[in-house]
Formats: sequence, structure tokens, C-alpha cells
Amino acid sequence: MTVSYREFYRSRKVMITGGLGFIGSNLARQLVDLGARVLLVDSLIPDYGGNLFNIDGMADRLQVNIADVRQQSTMNYLVRDRDVIFNLAGQVSHIDSMRDPYSDLEINCRSQLTVLEACRTYNPGVKVVFAGTRQVYGRPDSLPVRESHLVRPTDVNGINKAAGEYYHLVYNNVFGVRACSLRLTNVYGPRQLIRHNRQGFIGWFIRVAIENGVIHIYGDGSQLRDFVYVDDAADAFLRAGADDACNGEAFNVGGEAPHSLREVTDLLVDVAQSGRVQYVEWPAEKKAIDIGSFYADSSKFAGTTGWAPSISLRDGLHRTVAFYRQHYRQYVDATDTPEPSSP
Amino acid sequence: MTVSYREFYRSRKVMITGGLGFIGSNLARQLVDLGARVLLVDSLIPDYGGNLFNIDGMADRLQVNIADVRQQSTMNYLVRDRDVIFNLAGQVSHIDSMRDPYSDLEINCRSQLTVLEACRTYNPGVKVVFAGTRQVYGRPDSLPVRESHLVRPTDVNGINKAAGEYYHLVYNNVFGVRACSLRLTNVYGPRQLIRHNRQGFIGWFIRVAIENGVIHIYGDGSQLRDFVYVDDAADAFLRAGADDACNGEAFNVGGEAPHSLREVTDLLVDVAQSGRVQYVEWPAEKKAIDIGSFYADSSKFAGTTGWAPSISLRDGLHRTVAFYRQHYRQYVDATDTPEPSSP
Repeated sequence: MTVSYREFYRSRKVMITGGLGFIGSNLARQLVDLGARVLLVDSLIPDYGGNLFNIDGMADRLQVNIADVRQQSTMNYLVRDRDVIFNLAGQVSHIDSMRDPYSDLEINCRSQLTVLEACRTYNPGVKVVFAGTRQVYGRPDSLPVRESHLVRPTDVNGINKAAGEYYHLVYNNVFGVRACSLRLTNVYGPRQLIRHNRQGFIGWFIRVAIENGVIHIYGDGSQLRDFVYVDDAADAFLRAGADDACNGEAFNVGGEAPHSLREVTDLLVDVAQSGRVQYVEWPAEKKAIDIGSFYADSSKFAGTTGWAPSISLRDGLHRTVAFYRQHYRQYVDATDTPEPSSP
Repeated sequence: MTVSYREFYRSRKVMITGGLGFIGSNLARQLVDLGARVLLVDSLIPDYGGNLFNIDGMADRLQVNIADVRQQSTMNYLVRDRDVIFNLAGQVSHIDSMRDPYSDLEINCRSQLTVLEACRTYNPGVKVVFAGTRQVYGRPDSLPVRESHLVRPTDVNGINKAAGEYYHLVYNNVFGVRACSLRLTNVYGPRQLIRHNRQGFIGWFIRVAIENGVIHIYGDGSQLRDFVYVDDAADAFLRAGADDACNGEAFNVGGEAPHSLREVTDLLVDVAQSGRVQYVEWPAEKKAIDIGSFYADSSKFAGTTGWAPSISLRDGLHRTVAFYRQHYRQYVDATDTPEPSSP
């Protein structure tokens, strides 16, 4: 398995929803190199993470189809003949989900039914790998968090992502549309949206460091998180897509070890040789949906597929900082107005 | 608390969504007797359980407003000035949810956001009690099932009910709209829909027994279930609505003891003095979403509110059979065509 899962993709017809986004485009990069026939589906909704520059240098080796996963007839057509679908399209901002719960519902919950119904009717033999999230666990009862931990989301985004994941497992169990879910923790690396601070704090911190600005951390920075470099996350998707032992299951996919926010920001400032950290009070709106320390136990996924993270946090931050320094103008408009942020 | 929760409702403005349905109308009956000012909201969608005969004899002591909980502007108006909302509207058929997942999503998931957003904006001081379901647990890992058991639904209905419940808890925790959820097991009693067999097996069995027909049980009847008489369920809603100790929590509300299906149907035939039982093979469609034995541990709710079931299964079946014998034509059309059914 540890060798052959990569060979599995040679000439495979693969579709990635959210394919122009952060994880989708990095996954596409690996799939193209493995000889897969890759179709990226993306809505390119502003602020949601899709960016045509993310496929710079490989645009002629894959197909791009601009479409919205909420559109049933389009999905009915696009899923046909695919061997594997990596289902990554989503709205990832927790704060946005509390301000506009209906859009979050449509994109993170209802759209999963759209994709799965399309598969059930037009391509029941396909394999679907869903991008889940640690957010479904909410504030953890104990650490590290295993899959046996209660699903108890603290915000609307977490609820809709949980429902979207459950749909995949039910379609696997009831309709035989093979599917599994990877509950990702904090993924970081090149090609993440950094135009605003509502899509994960780590990308935003990296931007602020590059700009030699002030990274604001809420509280004292003692909160723990685990981090996955995007190439390791993409490798997890490749393994899950090739391995039927994953079907019907949800797996944690997290980092090797937990780091405090103080630790990770100090490391970032050291790696970037710019930026500085400032500790500030929690805004009430964010405190209300904060989950305290969180890090995942990924041993279930490791045991099933052999996956392990291979890029250290320092190395990953180095690569990420270098990428954004080189391509800064592709990810930050001259007109962007930064606001302070924290996890 | 054990006395005063009933006094709490005197002159209270109370709204029940799904108020013309099975549990809603029985709850309304108690509330009217307690002197509450009761507004029933119901869509009267055919096949969903709402029945104007359910308020026979008390129609002049409450208000009825026909409306759909999916309609935002209507909900925005109706929630105003209410002290307590019992949020019971829903689509309860598991099989229907697999045939038409979108309708189930709209009614069981999206509509909860509609009600909660209306409350958040127009009546943030209201208390909301949601009718949850044991279906969110799926096939249990161990018995009896406590609230610490994983939420792991086996069908689309269970997923959407889980999401609807989570919304209530998040709106409680984040927006301060006080809310809790009662995860009901098998509620039975007068005023349940028995026109078809897609809304719980126990009502259907009672109808078949009354008609002196053959009750079909899938498998050998050894599966365990617990049963709650509807007046006991209504009492649980009254307690939860009056008790702020319930806020932000989900509670099991189940029967006193588990019974095998063989036992309950034998008892039913004995009580009704008509009908007989036949054991048949599982249809594949139903087997795929079956959960085996299930019974709940309700001690968390009992400990919080003092609730306990007070009607024995034999007594409850007696009352139920007598009710439907007396009012048969209000619940079964001459044109209805029965089909076999089982839990």
C-alpha cells in the first residue's frame, strides 16, 4: 500500500471540488505528477479561496471547470466516469457562518447532498473523499482528540460540516457510494487564501510576518494546536482515495505534535526574520466560539493507510514564507486592508 | 420544581410548531389546561401528521396559525412576544428522507435555522425546546444509550435532525437564545398519524391490531425498544420549557424499561383483543438503515428536572386502542391502502 497508492492514480480520472483552492490545488499538483487525468471544479466565489494562480505552471496538464457544487444538473454531468472525487469545496470561515448561516448551510451541507445524489444516480462506482474538519468536535473533553470523541460543534460551520460528513458515511453504508472523511486540523502551506483573516489563522499570521507587521494573539498564547503541511494533507487524500479500507469511516488527520500559539508564532518570526507578536484580549464574538486547546490523535488513519506527516513545522514554515514572498502579489491585492486576527 | 413547573405556564404565551401533530397537540392539551395562551403553528402538509381533529374539543381555547416553518418572514412575526417555543415541526419518516433527502433537509435542518434566526432577531429572550430523536445515535455501541454515546446517524433524517439539534445548542451558547433538545425514543398514544406506516411503527401496529389484521415484524422480534406514552413526553417538554437548568443540553427522553418487539406486539394483541403477529424477512431497503436493539438511559433528564414516565405500557396501549377505536374515521380514510411495516 505505501508504494502502490501513488501508482494507483496513473491515468485515473479524478475530480477535485474546490480544486482551485488551497488544499485542492496542492493535491492537483501531486495528482498531475502521478499521471492522473485531473478535473478541477471550482466556483471561484470571491473570498472563498479559489485562485487561478494556484495552478500556475500546470494549467495545461489538467482541466478546469468553473461551476458551483450547489448546482445539481452540473454536478450530475461532471461526476460521470470519474474514478475518484476529492470533495473539498466549502465555505471555511467560522465567523461568516455565524453571520450568514444560510449560505454556510447551502455550501457546506446541502451541496454535499448534491454531489452525493449525482454520484448515486450517475456514477455509483465512484470513490469520494470528503474534506472534514476538527471543528466538528468543538471544545474537546480530553486531549489528544480521537474519533471516539463526541461530535459537538460550537458554531454553525462546524454543524454543517458535520452534517456534510455524515451524508458521505450514510451514502457509503446505505447506497454503496464508497466514501470517507478526513477531519483535518490546521493545514498550512503555499496557495492558501491570505487576502483576509477569516480562513484559518496560520495563513494570516504568515502574511503579517512577511509584511513585518504585528501578529495579534488573543489571550496568552498558551493554547495548543497541531499543524499539517499541505503536502502531507494532500498525501492523506491520495491514500484515502486509493484505499477501500477507509470506506464509511471518518479519520483525524493532524500534525505530529501540538504547539502552543506562542511557540508557533515565535518560530514563524524566527523563520521569516520579520514580524513581531503582540498578545491582546479576546473579542467577545470570537471567544464565544473558541474551543481552547486542541490537537488530534491521527493514529486511526496512520494505522489504516500508513500515512504520517513528513514535513516539520519549521521546514513547512520556511517553504511557505518563501512561496508567499515570491508570489505575494498573486495573493494580496494592493487595496487589501488587514485587520487583527487570532485562532 | 416538581410542582411549580406546571404553574409556570399559567398565562404564558407559548407557541408549538407542528402543533397540530401528534406530540404537539397532546402537549397543547396540557398547556391549555394549565392556563397557557397557546399558539399552534402547523403547515398541515398531507402525510406529515398534522390533523385538525387533534384539537377537537379545545379549538376555542387556543389559536391556530397555518404556516410553514421554512418561511422566514412568517416565523419572524410569529415568534414575537412568546415566552416559550416548543419546536416540534418536522418530517419524521426515515424512508422518505432517503428517497427525497432535500425535502428532509429543508424541513428538519434548514427550518431550524429559520426559527432560531427569527428568535435571535425578534425575540432573543424566548426559551426554545426542540424535539430531537434517538435516531441521531444510529446503531448503538452499548445499551442503554446515554448522551455520551457518539452521534452517528444511519440515515438522512437522523443527520438532519442532529444538525437541527446542534443549531439549537449553538444558538444557546453563542447567541444566548435559551434552548435545549429532548431526544425522544418511541412515543406512542392518541393523535398519532396512522394513515400510513412511515411515521413510527407503533402507531401502525395499533391500527393493524384494531383492524384485526396481521402485524408484520421483520426478523424474529427480539429487538429491544423503549416506549414513551405521549402524555409523559408532553410532561417532559413542560419541564424542559420551565427549567433553565436544561439550557444548552440534549437529553434522552425514553421509556421506563426496554421491551422486545415480540413482547410489545403480544401485549398489544392482548390489550386490543384483536389482530395477530407474523414474522417476516427484512426488506433490504429497511435493513440497510436498521439499528438493532435500542433503549435509552434517561437519567440525565430525570436528574435535572425530576421527570419520570408515569404511564405503563399496558395502560398506555389500552388508552391508545380505546382512542382510535372511538375516532377511527378521523385518522384512517376509507381509501387508505395498508402496506406491511415494522420498526
